[in-house]
Amino acid sequence: MNAAPVSRRARPAKAPLSREIVIEAGLRILDTDGLAALTMRRVAQELDTGAASLYVYVANRDDLMTGMLDQVLSTVAVPTEGDWRVRLTTLVETVIDALGRHEGLAMVAFGRIPTTGHALGVVEQVLALLREGGLDPATAAWAVDLIHLHITAEAACAAGGTEPAYLTEITRRFAELPADRYPTLVALRAQLLDGDGEARARWALRALLNGILATPVPA
Amino acid sequence: MNAAPVSRRARPAKAPLSREIVIEAGLRILDTDGLAALTMRRVAQELDTGAASLYVYVANRDDLMTGMLDQVLSTVAVPTEGDWRVRLTTLVETVIDALGRHEGLAMVAFGRIPTTGHALGVVEQVLALLREGGLDPATAAWAVDLIHLHITAEAACAAGGTEPAYLTEITRRFAELPADRYPTLVALRAQLLDGDGEARARWALRALLNGILATPVPA
Repeated sequence: MNAAPVSRRARPAKAPLSREIVIEAGLRILDTDGLAALTMRRVAQELDTGAASLYVYVANRDDLMTGMLDQVLSTVAVPTEGDWRVRLTTLVETVIDALGRHEGLAMVAFGRIPTTGHALGVVEQVLALLREGGLDPATAAWAVDLIHLHITAEAACAAGGTEPAYLTEITRRFAELPADRYPTLVALRAQLLDGDGEARARWALRALLNGILATPVPA
Repeated sequence: MNAAPVSRRARPAKAPLSREIVIEAGLRILDTDGLAALTMRRVAQELDTGAASLYVYVANRDDLMTGMLDQVLSTVAVPTEGDWRVRLTTLVETVIDALGRHEGLAMVAFGRIPTTGHALGVVEQVLALLREGGLDPATAAWAVDLIHLHITAEAACAAGGTEPAYLTEITRRFAELPADRYPTLVALRAQLLDGDGEARARWALRALLNGILATPVPA
């Protein structure tokens, strides 16, 4: 039985594409099916279009991921409560939270600050807060890398979950280590395995800021 | 023209396989042809064997990479010159150098300390030096994560090379940023782009150690 032919014109019009729409589709796929499912082909399917049409809006998968990262960072509010240090801490934790909700997104920024608008907006805020805290220009500039690395690492860990398999493995390994070869490791086993990730992250950021304040870049 | 048949027995015997031999082959391939070329199939070819034979010695590609990382760490000498801080700095820089010579190897350790013998040997040394420096057990234990992250990031950057494309891109972006939206970024452009990676890495480690010393973990 043949269906009566339908004119293209009678079909409902497809929603127009845009970079933002492609990026939103990418985020939906990432959050529903994970990083491995995020392919250009899959995004095209999601938008009921061909992969070739996507390339008008994103150059490739890396560009798509960078756009997704920037989109997520656009939701980060500028903290207004407290002194510079409190606001910087709030900002850093907010960014970690935002990135940590999406698998693989933080790794886009590993080792390099993305040059998109909202990513640079976060850098602008970090720099401004460090300057407000009295840091000289050179130290503030170099400190951004340290804070950026902290954000990337903590967000990647948050997105990866607690990884119980790794914790089980390292607990087992620590239990069997010979004390003559690894005396300090064996002595500090309990402290090393103390697993409160949030308390550790808060301490790490405090240590970073203390270190930055105590270590002016030589002129 | 047919060659005369050769008995299998007349061929030279193949060298016996071992985990160490498989790992050495992996490192040769990585250093010659790069991370993308490192597949189990390629390692099997290099050793003139079948992929199935490799699985006797390494569980999978991740396990092979972890073994390669451990093999590289086995070459790191224990520093003996200077006070604890000088020795810790030397140790960290030696590990960064060693890992930085092999593309992708540092990323095996991103966010998690491998549980192999030589990787734990480095952790043992770092912990012992921090304790020698007067740090309490809890702070020393948490500080290892910060130092580990520094090593991973610096080695990954070193292995990735200077990435001139990224530097060109970020220099171009910084040059065109509107000063009303990014006032601090624009004002600190010169300091942000100051590209001496080694001086930055040295400063970062000093700042980390200062921060760790100044930030005891609350009891």
